Amino acid sequence: MVRSIWNNYFAQNTAQLTNSVIRDLLHLTEQPSVISFAGGLPAPECFPAEELSAAAEQIIANNPVAALQYGLTEGYPPLRDLLIEHLHARQIDVCREELLLTAGSQQALDLLGRILIDPGSTIAVEDPTYLGALQSWRLYNPTYLTVPVDAEGLDVAALEQMLINGAQPRFLYIMSCFQNPTGVTLSPARREALLDLAVRFDLPIIEDDAYGELYYNDERPQPLAALDVARHGRLRYVAYLSSFSKLLAPGLRTGWVAASSGLIDKLVQVKQGTDLHTNSLAQAMIYQAVCDGLLERHVPYLRNTYRQRRDAMLAAFEQHVPVEVSWVVPEGGMFIWLTLPPYADTMEMLKLALEHDVAFVPGLPFYANGGGSNTMRLNFSHASRDDITAGIQRLAPVIERMI
Amino acid sequence: MVRSIWNNYFAQNTAQLTNSVIRDLLHLTEQPSVISFAGGLPAPECFPAEELSAAAEQIIANNPVAALQYGLTEGYPPLRDLLIEHLHARQIDVCREELLLTAGSQQALDLLGRILIDPGSTIAVEDPTYLGALQSWRLYNPTYLTVPVDAEGLDVAALEQMLINGAQPRFLYIMSCFQNPTGVTLSPARREALLDLAVRFDLPIIEDDAYGELYYNDERPQPLAALDVARHGRLRYVAYLSSFSKLLAPGLRTGWVAASSGLIDKLVQVKQGTDLHTNSLAQAMIYQAVCDGLLERHVPYLRNTYRQRRDAMLAAFEQHVPVEVSWVVPEGGMFIWLTLPPYADTMEMLKLALEHDVAFVPGLPFYANGGGSNTMRLNFSHASRDDITAGIQRLAPVIERMI
Repeated sequence: MVRSIWNNYFAQNTAQLTNSVIRDLLHLTEQPSVISFAGGLPAPECFPAEELSAAAEQIIANNPVAALQYGLTEGYPPLRDLLIEHLHARQIDVCREELLLTAGSQQALDLLGRILIDPGSTIAVEDPTYLGALQSWRLYNPTYLTVPVDAEGLDVAALEQMLINGAQPRFLYIMSCFQNPTGVTLSPARREALLDLAVRFDLPIIEDDAYGELYYNDERPQPLAALDVARHGRLRYVAYLSSFSKLLAPGLRTGWVAASSGLIDKLVQVKQGTDLHTNSLAQAMIYQAVCDGLLERHVPYLRNTYRQRRDAMLAAFEQHVPVEVSWVVPEGGMFIWLTLPPYADTMEMLKLALEHDVAFVPGLPFYANGGGSNTMRLNFSHASRDDITAGIQRLAPVIERMI
Repeated sequence: MVRSIWNNYFAQNTAQLTNSVIRDLLHLTEQPSVISFAGGLPAPECFPAEELSAAAEQIIANNPVAALQYGLTEGYPPLRDLLIEHLHARQIDVCREELLLTAGSQQALDLLGRILIDPGSTIAVEDPTYLGALQSWRLYNPTYLTVPVDAEGLDVAALEQMLINGAQPRFLYIMSCFQNPTGVTLSPARREALLDLAVRFDLPIIEDDAYGELYYNDERPQPLAALDVARHGRLRYVAYLSSFSKLLAPGLRTGWVAASSGLIDKLVQVKQGTDLHTNSLAQAMIYQAVCDGLLERHVPYLRNTYRQRRDAMLAAFEQHVPVEVSWVVPEGGMFIWLTLPPYADTMEMLKLALEHDVAFVPGLPFYANGGGSNTMRLNFSHASRDDITAGIQRLAPVIERMI
């Protein structure tokens, strides 16, 4: 085998990059015998395939340049205008200069990390937080200020105490609705208190609202961004991220960030060097599909389907899982978080679970500064209700045996 | 107006980001009265729209999960396998572990910059070089070693002298065929000499071959990557970048990088945090279209069309442009490069040209360390032959007046 010469030339920060043990383990979940609650995948049988196909056909026929030519870094203008309306309905009023289309909200996280993190910068995150955000920021080498999360979401009083004690994070990253991984939602009182803190300590907030539309009770929680606009007339403290990945199809890799124009300007400059612009066809076909009313037809159907799956998983928990295991019922999103007795080790448990053809993600990697080895994340959107029941029946004895 | 709080938190390297004067000027080219030779755009009337639309319909119907679900960071496996065959035909033998699909080759440039450039690292580039590469690497703050380019491409002897004198670039970035911006192609003798240098000085080479298939003589120049494989059995010194942007449609944002597996591994790790993976639908529909023989039908048609446009531009030059202006006839690609007398200032000339409803890109920004203010880049792929003739008739008197 020929030695690679590139290894001699890797930049210093690439030392942060390592292959994930969990990723390697989860490769095993690809076997058809495994019922996997590991991925954060939408239900593929629910994709609005025909309607997206029709939208692609229509937009390529009517406007091939919009669908196929190089486009603006900022995003396809008609889709931006449509998003402005869409955000208005969430009480988040923005103008074009406050909006950027991205390759999924994952890209927004990466771009934000690039322009806001110097090596060693402190950034505040929920504990636990979205693993993909931590992955995307590894190369920028931040220090994490981890803020506990309970059944009402981020512990705002704990954050306040950290700020009073002199912590100076560059920003707080938060999933305010149906958080990944815990499924919890920031309570209305804490939303107000968090905005107070932002003003008092000049603390920018990155609000990732990937799951907000997937609510299973009567009402969608109000985004922090809406509160920011209500108080300050426009987005001042909050950069608001969301995506079509969970509502239409993640393969289209189309998300967005709404924030004050000064921040969007910088993001556009960075994005241009990164990939010139987001896929034109995906943006144009989403525009076409949304104009044709697809979101109004499809999202209620998704909510209904996922609610039933969540309920199936909760019912299976009640019936099969040992009493030492606890969880908070998620009011939306795609995940339930299990907390086991402190001595439990869910990394070890995963190996045994895979032997029994069932998979989950251990909690450890969601904790920026370590911890949580007695926790696990279970996804309920991807498997059918029958598979959910069968999978929990496989998992329960594994948990029983290891606690 | 509310002050943006984000500005207080920008990372230090964002000081490298500035709005381009040229970009602002070129916004003026969007007026329909302007004949623009500025952009690097394919001819939109040549897009294989119907065939791409049919491919989208087919793949969504037959394999909605491939087209719409989250995919592998490495890329859609069937498209990777197809690319392996495609590269084999270019005498570049690679296996799956040596190949990564990217959001256009622009993303490959960005990912390579991230893992190979430390602040202050020296990297070697052609002088002039692709503006988009310089833009993508701004944030990583390299020092540039600029190597002159003449009618036979990179001056390899000059590079050799620099290396003998102790220059230690992390890599050389080169467009070996129909270079952007000059249109020149590295001669066969220099290709061999460059590979000799790579071996002698352990110099990695990033070969960007975005235009190689658009050749207007009988033969496609052999990529450096093919030479590397011929000499070393597999890709050792060369990372090979290319894309479907110029062959099918840039809006699909699908490119790739082929290189030794150690480098690809790192790129995959970084890409995962950047955007998870490249657009699934674009990859799957390209796979479908290429299986259906689209490249074989379409690329010869593009070559023919662009060759005629190049010839129309050359004919207009011969007839209208002052004798003080010189150029090298490009044997492929999308650009002709004009060199004016040393005292000419093409930035100033652009302002006057825009008053006469014609546009080009001044040469200055393509020079990493400055220079070239008497040069300009003209694109011949986007405008029709009639517009090319009319545009050069507008441009010639502007040049005449300012030299």
